[in-house]
Amino acid sequence: MALVNEHFLKLQNSYLFSDIAKKVNSFKITHPKDKIIRMGIGDVTQPLPPAVIEAMHKAVDELATKETFHGYGPEQGYSFLIDAILKNDYASRGVYLEPSEVFVSDGAKSDTGNIGDMLRHDNSIGVTDPVYPVYIDSNVMSGRTGILENGKWSDVVYIPCTEENNFIPSLPDRRVDIIYLCYPNNPTGTTLSKDELKKWVNYALANNAIIMYDSAYEAYIQDTDIPHSIYEIKGAKKVAIEFRSFSKTAGFTGVRCGYTVVPKELNAFTLNGETVQLNKLWNRRQSTKFNGTSYITQRGAEAIYSPEGKKQVKETINYYMTNARIMKEGLRACGLNVYGGTNAPYLWLKTPDRLSSWKFFDKLLYEVNIVGTPGVGFGPSGEGYLRLTAFGDRNDTMEAMDRLKKWLHQ
Amino acid sequence: MALVNEHFLKLQNSYLFSDIAKKVNSFKITHPKDKIIRMGIGDVTQPLPPAVIEAMHKAVDELATKETFHGYGPEQGYSFLIDAILKNDYASRGVYLEPSEVFVSDGAKSDTGNIGDMLRHDNSIGVTDPVYPVYIDSNVMSGRTGILENGKWSDVVYIPCTEENNFIPSLPDRRVDIIYLCYPNNPTGTTLSKDELKKWVNYALANNAIIMYDSAYEAYIQDTDIPHSIYEIKGAKKVAIEFRSFSKTAGFTGVRCGYTVVPKELNAFTLNGETVQLNKLWNRRQSTKFNGTSYITQRGAEAIYSPEGKKQVKETINYYMTNARIMKEGLRACGLNVYGGTNAPYLWLKTPDRLSSWKFFDKLLYEVNIVGTPGVGFGPSGEGYLRLTAFGDRNDTMEAMDRLKKWLHQ
Repeated sequence: MALVNEHFLKLQNSYLFSDIAKKVNSFKITHPKDKIIRMGIGDVTQPLPPAVIEAMHKAVDELATKETFHGYGPEQGYSFLIDAILKNDYASRGVYLEPSEVFVSDGAKSDTGNIGDMLRHDNSIGVTDPVYPVYIDSNVMSGRTGILENGKWSDVVYIPCTEENNFIPSLPDRRVDIIYLCYPNNPTGTTLSKDELKKWVNYALANNAIIMYDSAYEAYIQDTDIPHSIYEIKGAKKVAIEFRSFSKTAGFTGVRCGYTVVPKELNAFTLNGETVQLNKLWNRRQSTKFNGTSYITQRGAEAIYSPEGKKQVKETINYYMTNARIMKEGLRACGLNVYGGTNAPYLWLKTPDRLSSWKFFDKLLYEVNIVGTPGVGFGPSGEGYLRLTAFGDRNDTMEAMDRLKKWLHQ
Repeated sequence: MALVNEHFLKLQNSYLFSDIAKKVNSFKITHPKDKIIRMGIGDVTQPLPPAVIEAMHKAVDELATKETFHGYGPEQGYSFLIDAILKNDYASRGVYLEPSEVFVSDGAKSDTGNIGDMLRHDNSIGVTDPVYPVYIDSNVMSGRTGILENGKWSDVVYIPCTEENNFIPSLPDRRVDIIYLCYPNNPTGTTLSKDELKKWVNYALANNAIIMYDSAYEAYIQDTDIPHSIYEIKGAKKVAIEFRSFSKTAGFTGVRCGYTVVPKELNAFTLNGETVQLNKLWNRRQSTKFNGTSYITQRGAEAIYSPEGKKQVKETINYYMTNARIMKEGLRACGLNVYGGTNAPYLWLKTPDRLSSWKFFDKLLYEVNIVGTPGVGFGPSGEGYLRLTAFGDRNDTMEAMDRLKKWLHQ
């Protein structure tokens, strides 16, 4: 008799973004004429950079003739892309990695979800709260989280990040083997300084813990002193896996490409205390359960690092970050408290009058036809906040701010 | 202290195809002038069908403008592709599935590797022997296989498929919860009749077992009475998950697309005996740990089902199957015993003079410069066989047969 993994059954059937979609759909049915401005889900709206388009057309043509056809590629990614990553994303910031420490994939969601495959089911987990739900849900599925009580999993250490502590997570008060950090942060849009990040690296070094560092939004960093990679911190190669994505950097949400760095210095342990190089295990995982990313996609990703590609990527990021500035100024002019949005495409809005996240979501939807994401959907410490994204159209962004101003100054 | 999943450490470091690559490389260094003909690894050599190329160019262009840009798609795949699959791969054979029973992915390797996520770690596993290594290795990683002794995992039921039983697996002699079947078979190139497949469906129905049915090579079936889908067998929707791939059908090995069918009638069980719909669990797994397949890839896959696409796909398959016929006739003319190759792109060659698989591999490499895959690499019952693939160039295929004839008639 085939048995299910019962940990799956612990997950709630509903999912934040489908709950939102349902609410928006029922609003649309009852208010067919109202124009909704969507600032909820974190999908990009600007097209791919022309350099990427050109490279992908070329790659498609290569697959059209026998002489230039590409079949199975390396499961770890093509060296043309890995070399571009090493040079542009790391060496340029003084971080030196070997090609075999980089694993190209179809996106950070797959990698952050699958990374737990190579770790024991009873490692303890720590997350900053609020948090990107995939970190927790993928651990629920593999049985690392205990049971759900009052919106928290019993075996997960939640580290609150709120207005009160300026969104800077304090070190955990109980043992944590694996810590998820995402900076620039989704959903709060806040960042960590080098000194703050160093605290975490030192904690992990002292406790033989592993940091899962998601820097999917590093391209949005504007301030020069904020680290783009955790490997800018001394010792981090011994304790951290870094996840990157081209989704938000270059509009690859529908094209699917990212990469994960597993340094060779990084070890985990057997029950007997023997050290095991995680690079080898991840290589084995990817070789066994993955067959590489589309050649076309990888050629497209490579083009991001060309001189034209870099310029075009920067323009798109500037476009979104100008949206973010307009939003931040607009919301502040309304007298609202808002965080993030200066080194990240996310703004984290404190709800006025201590409204709950969902209450404020409903008001925004019904009274000004703006869709945000209720902060509580990202964890208990997100209650009383709403996430807005800067990925929208400029005109829509400005119109949204106008609507808010009128609404709040009625 | 972060602990590793020690099951990973049970896997041998070497891997069949890298062992072969090493041997071939050392031959090349010592024999730089000899022309090697590769009939080992199962990668295609013909370019993508023109209809696919055209569709992918169009899709790339769509991503170049804001109005037609596509960001995140459904994790389960776009309905344009799912509808084409339902109509052409299933309804045309009298199998009716719902769109939500099909999950588009980046390939069958990912899906066959990840499918175990939703099943308990202590389900017992059965495989036909020889077998595609991913089925076993992915179960080793999740702790379902016990220990390795004499080339077999202690908790895996191996069902021999050899010349003696005409490569038809008999039902297992001890309890098996999950059975992997791949037909047309990799590596033997043999098929199962409807009656034989029915035995397996009935076994699974009687034992509440699940059949993981890999039909990645169904497009190569020539005989009209061989089932393309397990769902052609009555009751199979209650017991089988089916994996399909565009890799061999349409040259997508480097583009990455496949799909998995998880029927809503298919249940597994909790320890308490409650039934759980696996469709829901797989949907949750994919929504949490996967973010859909490239839009460009999916548009390319859709084009396979257009009238031109179908014609072009057929031409390429005919090309490979003509290779297979030339090989089979050539090998038989040499007095060798060879199986498969009439409904599959693989030929399964019995080594002459009871040579071991590796011994014969070495002889072929050094004496006629032909690379095959040692059968023993696919499992103990593969000893004494060699896999040859029909994916090569026509001239190379003919030359290989000429070399063999001269060699064996010396």
